Amino acid sequence: MENASFVIAIDAMGGDHAPDSVIAGVKFAEKKHSDVRFLIFGDEAKVQPFIDKYQLDKGRYQFVHTPDYVASDEKPSAAVRSGRKSSLWLAIDAVKKGDAAAVVSSGNTGALMAFSKLILGTMPGIHRPAIVTILPTCKSECVVLDLGANAECDARNLVEFAIMGEAYCHAVLKREKPTIGLLNIGSEDIKGRDEIRQAAQILRDSPLSEEFKGFVESDDIATGAVDVFVTDGFTGNIALKAIEGTARLMVSALKDAASRSILSKLGFLLALPSLKKLKKRMDPGRYNGAMLVGLKGISIKSHGGADAFGFANAINVALDTVRHDLVGNIARRLESVEFLEEEKEK
Amino acid sequence: MENASFVIAIDAMGGDHAPDSVIAGVKFAEKKHSDVRFLIFGDEAKVQPFIDKYQLDKGRYQFVHTPDYVASDEKPSAAVRSGRKSSLWLAIDAVKKGDAAAVVSSGNTGALMAFSKLILGTMPGIHRPAIVTILPTCKSECVVLDLGANAECDARNLVEFAIMGEAYCHAVLKREKPTIGLLNIGSEDIKGRDEIRQAAQILRDSPLSEEFKGFVESDDIATGAVDVFVTDGFTGNIALKAIEGTARLMVSALKDAASRSILSKLGFLLALPSLKKLKKRMDPGRYNGAMLVGLKGISIKSHGGADAFGFANAINVALDTVRHDLVGNIARRLESVEFLEEEKEK
Repeated sequence: MENASFVIAIDAMGGDHAPDSVIAGVKFAEKKHSDVRFLIFGDEAKVQPFIDKYQLDKGRYQFVHTPDYVASDEKPSAAVRSGRKSSLWLAIDAVKKGDAAAVVSSGNTGALMAFSKLILGTMPGIHRPAIVTILPTCKSECVVLDLGANAECDARNLVEFAIMGEAYCHAVLKREKPTIGLLNIGSEDIKGRDEIRQAAQILRDSPLSEEFKGFVESDDIATGAVDVFVTDGFTGNIALKAIEGTARLMVSALKDAASRSILSKLGFLLALPSLKKLKKRMDPGRYNGAMLVGLKGISIKSHGGADAFGFANAINVALDTVRHDLVGNIARRLESVEFLEEEKEK
Repeated sequence: MENASFVIAIDAMGGDHAPDSVIAGVKFAEKKHSDVRFLIFGDEAKVQPFIDKYQLDKGRYQFVHTPDYVASDEKPSAAVRSGRKSSLWLAIDAVKKGDAAAVVSSGNTGALMAFSKLILGTMPGIHRPAIVTILPTCKSECVVLDLGANAECDARNLVEFAIMGEAYCHAVLKREKPTIGLLNIGSEDIKGRDEIRQAAQILRDSPLSEEFKGFVESDDIATGAVDVFVTDGFTGNIALKAIEGTARLMVSALKDAASRSILSKLGFLLALPSLKKLKKRMDPGRYNGAMLVGLKGISIKSHGGADAFGFANAINVALDTVRHDLVGNIARRLESVEFLEEEKEK
């Protein structure tokens, strides 16, 4: 492989439509980013036919044959024991060795997180890595974390997520001074959980006090009330899947409405160009690519069901975070946050 | 007031559009249910003009003048101290005294819960009352609880919610043997929180074992994977508001798409009858009326922003639960659940 500005390691074996959609996604990215090359890990017998089919540029990729792979339903603990020769392990290891600037995989989330933690290690000052993604809002987009890496979090974890989410938003959404909100419930009876109130107190007294806008509720995600929504992994996962489920329900109800009468069919046909634009804006593939932040390297989770367009978008996210030196950026922000250092001393 | 099959106590002062939409909602219900009468509490100077405007049948209601009321932003603790002569307190007290079979209010949720607990008391065997509602699914409807009464729950609370949710589903959605799921996250890395796993174990060994279908995720709400979704109040509130926010985002995006070109406008005009049916099916007012279950009496929370149609629907929910003797039903189910009695002995 020739010299290139950036090399992205690709796990070709992960995901529901692998390796087809993975290699097709690499082809999309190859066309879009002339300064990027790919280090592809997978079973040669399965992957090579798609490399041929999509005619990857021979000067832009290197293929590493890895007969083992991690199944999507494999337990992370089992994968850690037996998966050290898998495409996923070796792709992450390429980042550790400096052969690649980031890794992208549509495979088993738990194994990706466990392997990434083991191989890349957690950043100094960060106790728990988090999964961060971008979601559409009525205005534009927002950042949400954690989406499922940590079912239970304390105040310190939430404050770390706020710092990482702010840096991520800056890198990927290019916002200068992203606003931050802590996800909470608005019932007058209960003002949420202790750890959320404590995290709010720490953030109010921190260098991020100006960016921190206090508590937000989950319907504020759709309106984009803040740039960065911070929550524990259980709550984030519940909110994310509630949003996805509702969007799918609305689309199916709309299709149902469209087919109800001849006039409706004609009507929807006339409105098709507008509806297509809407669909494009809401396309989950556009928001594909969730980073595992807080690691000493860039590891990107693509959705298991991602198509080629979605996988290419996950590669975009990898490139944005590499170009913005997200890992270095978060490290520098952490250093400047004394309240966290103090906490650490305790 | 003449004899009647059922009397519903109405807090006319609660809600963003009170007392207008409350009295308009009572008028809707008066027309729909000939066997129901209303005991209305509120400030005469404010309420009487709307009783006149909507021409309530004089034989079907009794009005009680209550100059005090609880503000929507008042803290429940403050309301408990000063609100004992308020419309809300006296409307709930009418249920306690046996003057009404149920109470409906669009007012302050925290105050409604605090007053209801104080006045009506919690059912024997129930440690924490919960807020339960009905949500639309692609098939029909489902029941979700808790929606915000209890930010943190243990396994026993969740099992109690399952029992109450099942009885509620039977009464309001008329399902014979409602299926039950525990809301959890599906990440392979983390199978959720301890209390959820413990609650699942108790339910698997309980008389509800056949109805209990294990863990469900928040996107299963839209598909209606089970009849009853059980979760703590924090998570339930997050899921509910994520669903509401997404639905509003999709509707506004659709309106935006509709107005984008002349063809689109024409198209949406042709599809209008179908879209109206869809809107009707998704109308939040149709699902208005969240019961505070687990109390020794029926107390129904209507949305603060409910219109007349929504308030009338909350009255429907009150009637369904009264007619099905929900309180007695839950009590009988609790008695038959030995595993809970054993727990209680500990």
